[in-house]
Amino acid sequence: MDRIESVTKYPLAIGGVAWLVLAIVVVTTDIDSTASTVAVATLFALWALLLLEYLVRLVITPDTRGYLRRRWVEPVTVVVPPFAGWHLVGMEKMTLLVREAQLRVAFILSHHSLFRVLIAAAGTLFLGAWLVLLFENHAPGSNIHSYPNALWWAVVTVTTVGYGDRYPVSEGGRIVASVIMLLGIGLIGVLTATVASVFVKEHTDANKEVYRQGHETLSQQLMVITERLADVERRLGASAQDVAAVDAKADADEAAEGPVLDDAKSDKDSDGS
Amino acid sequence: MDRIESVTKYPLAIGGVAWLVLAIVVVTTDIDSTASTVAVATLFALWALLLLEYLVRLVITPDTRGYLRRRWVEPVTVVVPPFAGWHLVGMEKMTLLVREAQLRVAFILSHHSLFRVLIAAAGTLFLGAWLVLLFENHAPGSNIHSYPNALWWAVVTVTTVGYGDRYPVSEGGRIVASVIMLLGIGLIGVLTATVASVFVKEHTDANKEVYRQGHETLSQQLMVITERLADVERRLGASAQDVAAVDAKADADEAAEGPVLDDAKSDKDSDGS
Amino acid sequence: MDRIESVTKYPLAIGGVAWLVLAIVVVTTDIDSTASTVAVATLFALWALLLLEYLVRLVITPDTRGYLRRRWVEPVTVVVPPFAGWHLVGMEKMTLLVREAQLRVAFILSHHSLFRVLIAAAGTLFLGAWLVLLFENHAPGSNIHSYPNALWWAVVTVTTVGYGDRYPVSEGGRIVASVIMLLGIGLIGVLTATVASVFVKEHTDANKEVYRQGHETLSQQLMVITERLADVERRLGASAQDVAAVDAKADADEAAEGPVLDDAKSDKDSDGS
Amino acid sequence: MDRIESVTKYPLAIGGVAWLVLAIVVVTTDIDSTASTVAVATLFALWALLLLEYLVRLVITPDTRGYLRRRWVEPVTVVVPPFAGWHLVGMEKMTLLVREAQLRVAFILSHHSLFRVLIAAAGTLFLGAWLVLLFENHAPGSNIHSYPNALWWAVVTVTTVGYGDRYPVSEGGRIVASVIMLLGIGLIGVLTATVASVFVKEHTDANKEVYRQGHETLSQQLMVITERLADVERRLGASAQDVAAVDAKADADEAAEGPVLDDAKSDKDSDGS
Repeated sequence: MDRIESVTKYPLAIGGVAWLVLAIVVVTTDIDSTASTVAVATLFALWALLLLEYLVRLVITPDTRGYLRRRWVEPVTVVVPPFAGWHLVGMEKMTLLVREAQLRVAFILSHHSLFRVLIAAAGTLFLGAWLVLLFENHAPGSNIHSYPNALWWAVVTVTTVGYGDRYPVSEGGRIVASVIMLLGIGLIGVLTATVASVFVKEHTDANKEVYRQGHETLSQQLMVITERLADVERRLGASAQDVAAVDAKADADEAAEGPVLDDAKSDKDSDGS
Repeated sequence: MDRIESVTKYPLAIGGVAWLVLAIVVVTTDIDSTASTVAVATLFALWALLLLEYLVRLVITPDTRGYLRRRWVEPVTVVVPPFAGWHLVGMEKMTLLVREAQLRVAFILSHHSLFRVLIAAAGTLFLGAWLVLLFENHAPGSNIHSYPNALWWAVVTVTTVGYGDRYPVSEGGRIVASVIMLLGIGLIGVLTATVASVFVKEHTDANKEVYRQGHETLSQQLMVITERLADVERRLGASAQDVAAVDAKADADEAAEGPVLDDAKSDKDSDGS
Repeated sequence: MDRIESVTKYPLAIGGVAWLVLAIVVVTTDIDSTASTVAVATLFALWALLLLEYLVRLVITPDTRGYLRRRWVEPVTVVVPPFAGWHLVGMEKMTLLVREAQLRVAFILSHHSLFRVLIAAAGTLFLGAWLVLLFENHAPGSNIHSYPNALWWAVVTVTTVGYGDRYPVSEGGRIVASVIMLLGIGLIGVLTATVASVFVKEHTDANKEVYRQGHETLSQQLMVITERLADVERRLGASAQDVAAVDAKADADEAAEGPVLDDAKSDKDSDGS
Repeated sequence: MDRIESVTKYPLAIGGVAWLVLAIVVVTTDIDSTASTVAVATLFALWALLLLEYLVRLVITPDTRGYLRRRWVEPVTVVVPPFAGWHLVGMEKMTLLVREAQLRVAFILSHHSLFRVLIAAAGTLFLGAWLVLLFENHAPGSNIHSYPNALWWAVVTVTTVGYGDRYPVSEGGRIVASVIMLLGIGLIGVLTATVASVFVKEHTDANKEVYRQGHETLSQQLMVITERLADVERRLGASAQDVAAVDAKADADEAAEGPVLDDAKSDKDSDGS
């Protein structure tokens, strides 16, 4: 299979780019022209070829189920040919990268209530769009007259893109708009800050590990010293009972070290909240 | 009460969505049409139903005062029905979430003078709007001719939305606009940085805690060793007075440990400034 | 002086707001109308009053030089009356706040080469504006035909405001524009990141201090133990010379602690680069 | 050479600015006018002068190869004269600054998969532009009718500039646009967060160093104490064999300290991924 792929990956990638070029030609040329008809035919031919190549590989491979599972992103390259460029990276590596990206996004969304903040923002957007429509629908010179338009305006505003194809002209509408703009800036800030905090955490967690290991080393050195002292006491004629008593106390103190590790673990659990 | 709510929460949420749909219909259809009249009637009927359900629950509950306090966000869902979706989460949990969000925002505003920076920015905005009006009011081809319009333009600019419905055309106006744009970028930067720093602080404080606990453990191990040494000295025939003298010195040194903890506390207090 | 100010601060603040309202009236009403003439007269009268109050205070105060130095932001409130609102905060506190803000901005600009990055960005902007003008000046349908317009367009683009009053239409112009947009995003990113890093540094420096003090405490505990051990050795009949030899070694090791502090200092110096 | 440059740097810088002014005049004046002809002639004369001065310096210098290598940014100032301002900073220092900036950008791109994220975003942009073209090309009132226009619109959108010269009007196009806007916000967030995390890492690494040095000092103090204890044991009549046995154990524990440093090193290596 790998042999087949090492041969076909360049034609596949070129086929993907060719498909995109053809698709653009089809979209932008007159629909009844001969050029368009030819382009559409080639488009479908390319599609069929890509599908065929994929099916052949699927049939030839001994472990079809595992093949599908190890490269579950591949069907995307057959449905949307421009993604065939992924073959250059290797379909199995690409699957791992996609999986990693999914985990990263999920990880970031789970920090600092980011997911809840996004849900609340989406709710505010739907309501804000309605409020703006209320103010703008009958305002003179307004250009927001339907809910889909109001929602589109709200999205354009909250992302601070601001095309200016739709904008409020009434005072009420402008006040609602200002709130949505501030919401947008706040959202961008919280999103960026959450990503930054997750990235920084990776570095500082490495530091925490250095501290923990450093303490461990010192603690072991101290245990050697304690042992030696016990030896000295023994040599000084202390009864076995005396040394045992002091040892028991030392063990109790050492037991107090346990919570350090336990606490660190529970702190990891609570970080995600 | 909980029983009532577990039954009514789905109808309430659906009622809220229905209200928003009806409200959009009312806003966008011709005001004199029959459809509009029917929609308005249904709107008020829905409102009455939501209010009734709420009042019934208030009357039935034994501890009305506590009920109101534990779920003080509920009246919002009666006044603005689309928020009835909150019933799906549970009104008491929602109240806690709103409270937590309020505390978080207040906490972030209190860091790195963020609140003062926002006040200063608001002042600059009012003054900048006036300055732009001064330059633009009589400029040929200008579209900013009143203070409310100038203020609206300033808000659209400082948030970097930039619709383009209003923009300065004179050189003076453009220089003021550039200052407001830079102010906007600076504001977004400071806001994002403050949120990021608060988020990161949570992680580094956890590290500080790990360090402090490790330090505590080592300190206790050292105390055991010191104790053992005193025992050794005693066995070597030191007079009780000698050991007491060295102990006094050790106590004085241990007292020097106090400032570490005190300092950490005062540093927490001063962080907020 | 303080007595005078505690009486005049409210009238002064109200006078400032009144001045802004009048100034808006003057700017937006017809220049030949009676209303405008009256407003202009009142404007100058207000100005004269504010100046008079300031001069009276200056003359009455015994230490004029110190008075001027401690509140050097005050002349701003006389020249631009809306700033008279600063009297509510107190002119001396306001001076300190302005000074602190200046130091903060200077501090942030000195980190991670931010100042150099801004200079480089400004240079790129001037050159980018020229390049766009080169492509756009003779392009059909273009709206950028002079260098000031091109520069204005570049500022609007680099801050991602994007009014859309000017935009490139030629392919060359659009490529230059894309570079300027990416520059803008990079700038906003570096600015935000620098502010965030300075804010986070404040927290982590506090942690560094905790570590340093924790080490100091442990080190002192160890010194007590070392001292006790010397005592034990002495009691075991070691000659004074033997103990001195081991002490000398211990001192040499302790001297190795010096570099920790020195290094930390030099590291603070190099942070600013 | 340095003598020549200290004399020529001011004329060169002024020449660079003069060139930019002339270039603007040439671009904005009527191409057939006398003024334009004169300006073009002066432009080329300035260019020739700058080139001549550079070549003279190259010829005069003894170590031409080293001269070229130490100031490889200089040719840029000859080709694009406005950069002649670099002479004020010093061409060799400028070369170092450019090199440092290149390394910084490469360093930041290598963190948190930033480079891969940018590649993925670029791919999404090309595909998004095609999708929008698909929806918009035949939509009534649309202004996106060719792939270059669609791509330009996608760049303007993803950077949140949003001129509004092109915008989607169909529902499908608006949904694709919303995805591209969110992608843009995400990109800005990840970029800013990566830069911030790299900046913060510099500070926390300094802290780690402080910790490591404090740990080193304590470890050395403990080694002195261990040595002293061995002395005490020896004095108490332990056989040389006994002390050696305890020493061997202590050495084994000390060897456990190695991993701390090794781990820190390997952690530095893996940070870059």
